Amino acid sequence: MSVKAAVLGYGVVGSGVVELFYKNKKSIEKRAGKEMDIKYILDLRDFPDSPYRDKLTKDFNDIVNDDEVSVVAECMGGVEPAFTFVKACLEKGKSVSTSNKELVAEKGDILLKTAKDNNCNFFFEASVGGAIPIIRPLHKCLAANDISRVAGILNGTTNFILTKMYNDNMPFDTALKLAQQLGYAEKDPTADIEGHDACRKICIISSLVYGKHVYPKSVCTKGISSLELCDVESAEVLGYAIKLIASVTRLDDGRILPAVMPMLVPFDSIISGVNDVFNAVMVYADGIDQAMFYGRGAGKLPTASAVLGDVINSVQHDNTVDSQTWEPSDDDSFIAPISSFSSRWYFRLPAGAECSAEGAYSSESGVSFVTEDILTYDEAAAKAGELGAKAFIPVLE
Amino acid sequence: MSVKAAVLGYGVVGSGVVELFYKNKKSIEKRAGKEMDIKYILDLRDFPDSPYRDKLTKDFNDIVNDDEVSVVAECMGGVEPAFTFVKACLEKGKSVSTSNKELVAEKGDILLKTAKDNNCNFFFEASVGGAIPIIRPLHKCLAANDISRVAGILNGTTNFILTKMYNDNMPFDTALKLAQQLGYAEKDPTADIEGHDACRKICIISSLVYGKHVYPKSVCTKGISSLELCDVESAEVLGYAIKLIASVTRLDDGRILPAVMPMLVPFDSIISGVNDVFNAVMVYADGIDQAMFYGRGAGKLPTASAVLGDVINSVQHDNTVDSQTWEPSDDDSFIAPISSFSSRWYFRLPAGAECSAEGAYSSESGVSFVTEDILTYDEAAAKAGELGAKAFIPVLE
Repeated sequence: MSVKAAVLGYGVVGSGVVELFYKNKKSIEKRAGKEMDIKYILDLRDFPDSPYRDKLTKDFNDIVNDDEVSVVAECMGGVEPAFTFVKACLEKGKSVSTSNKELVAEKGDILLKTAKDNNCNFFFEASVGGAIPIIRPLHKCLAANDISRVAGILNGTTNFILTKMYNDNMPFDTALKLAQQLGYAEKDPTADIEGHDACRKICIISSLVYGKHVYPKSVCTKGISSLELCDVESAEVLGYAIKLIASVTRLDDGRILPAVMPMLVPFDSIISGVNDVFNAVMVYADGIDQAMFYGRGAGKLPTASAVLGDVINSVQHDNTVDSQTWEPSDDDSFIAPISSFSSRWYFRLPAGAECSAEGAYSSESGVSFVTEDILTYDEAAAKAGELGAKAFIPVLE
Repeated sequence: MSVKAAVLGYGVVGSGVVELFYKNKKSIEKRAGKEMDIKYILDLRDFPDSPYRDKLTKDFNDIVNDDEVSVVAECMGGVEPAFTFVKACLEKGKSVSTSNKELVAEKGDILLKTAKDNNCNFFFEASVGGAIPIIRPLHKCLAANDISRVAGILNGTTNFILTKMYNDNMPFDTALKLAQQLGYAEKDPTADIEGHDACRKICIISSLVYGKHVYPKSVCTKGISSLELCDVESAEVLGYAIKLIASVTRLDDGRILPAVMPMLVPFDSIISGVNDVFNAVMVYADGIDQAMFYGRGAGKLPTASAVLGDVINSVQHDNTVDSQTWEPSDDDSFIAPISSFSSRWYFRLPAGAECSAEGAYSSESGVSFVTEDILTYDEAAAKAGELGAKAFIPVLE
């Protein structure tokens, strides 16, 4: 008997899941080891011209109460009603794959426990890095490693804007407008440009790697909206590209430090060459030293690819709990404050300022340099005050 | 009861497996969901000072006949006796993880069938790309995709040599000597510099992705020993880095074309920034568009990390066949000959040669250019003859 799946939400990602499934159905079934079909698509809208209109339903109960449905792809986005629907599916023993980073960042611990209690799987490869395999490599392929840091470019919109600022000397506002015209940024771009989207993703990675739920509110998050073109240009002269970096580092005292900030990435790091809407995640660990995963972080088919990869894995591992769980966190004492963050720093002083730093670069926009010393966040802020700096940005070491 | 493992071979990789296992035993057991220990280490040599000397045995029968041993890490290298040992373990239902690319490239189909027939797993993540998760992402995370091409840098020794030629204008022979001094190249470097090592790895990837065993003898393999420094320099001026690329492409007629050749990689491709001993694999497919996996392709702990990741997966999936099988191939009619290969090409004509090609670069070494047209291998060879070209090298599109 063939495995029956349901897709919740027929928007960009959900319609991509249906399209990719029917395009590659034969090879998907071969890999899953079973015949498969999509029985329901949940959406409140009407799609009278869709070739799949017979599968469309507006009633979630059709899906949750159908014992034939054993696997569900959640592509609705937002915490509610996604959380209620996903939890209800898991409680009935239906495995769920989701592309919903907000849901996982806010409710991952609860949903993973619900899945485990009901002997099914809650997978979320698509919630971080779109098409890029990162969740499964982190907890499967790198399972023998002690992971000390994960750092990456987890938001395609801001990376597109930064690439335009860097390659075409385009000011932030112009680059944002272009991103909106091309459909890379939403009408209200706040979640992307202020770092909230990248924050949710680093929360998911932090929870997975370090085993306790990290909530977005515990993470210091800075965006790129106040970044000036002259800093992008000065950084280039000094040998760096500016990227919005989401990272989590384990400190010597055992606490972890997640953060989202614009950072200077040295040109000899391969992350500096990750451009346009592409994402990349670098993992540092004792066994592997470092490994990077690169690809499209968003988009219809790339995200659908990750959702379907999880669906196939659920079918292969029917009645086995293959997803990695993490503990809920009652307090955030295991998370270090941003004052513990330390690195070398880029400073830009006003034009004409006296500066003895080696390799300083002067232009009409100011005098820029990168410190040789490692400074904490508080030390850098104090130094910026003393020097009357117009900008100070950490270096990705 | 705890899971008992055995390690075959206590050389560089085998000792890395033992070291990394005991370093991270606690977290490994947490991820595996079971207590684990290494019961035997097989090696013909004596290690009287090893802290693990009690586990060392010279007799394979100790391991294969011990029903308590359920998982085996094969780190001996070479086809025999590895093949006989691995097959015997699988026939007893013991799952095997290997770092042995020669074994998988020559005998993968047989060993995968043996594993499936005996309800256990034969894993080989470590055989391609060392620490880089690539095998599991290819057949798990990208399972919903139709993969059209895989291309990458799969040999660290040659990439180190090419990086030295590029960065430091070091001739091939000098760079090879340096690689040998640093331990990156063996005393007899043939397998690396002539492309045989990269060939074995692209055979494994081709077999996995396209489902039929591809033998090394069916793959057109060119190394870098005849590459001249002036071509590396001219390519740079034209906007390319020369890399040894192992690739497999599915042609329009359904046949596949695996090959190992030096190729010009455009600077705007992220692969051009993969330097030193690092490896990277780019995957092109209908869902993801493109994704790249980057990391250390060799070395004690990086390779051990991949072997142990597979061991942990075997423990998690006890009595489930989680490894992807492929069919044996009686003939190689599904493999296209190199004459079907097509791309743009780099040519170097003798110094002073007349040349009307746009953007041609003249130096005392010759006149270099890249064609605008796509030419087949045979067409490029004919053109090289006509023009009296000193070198012709394909471009990675």
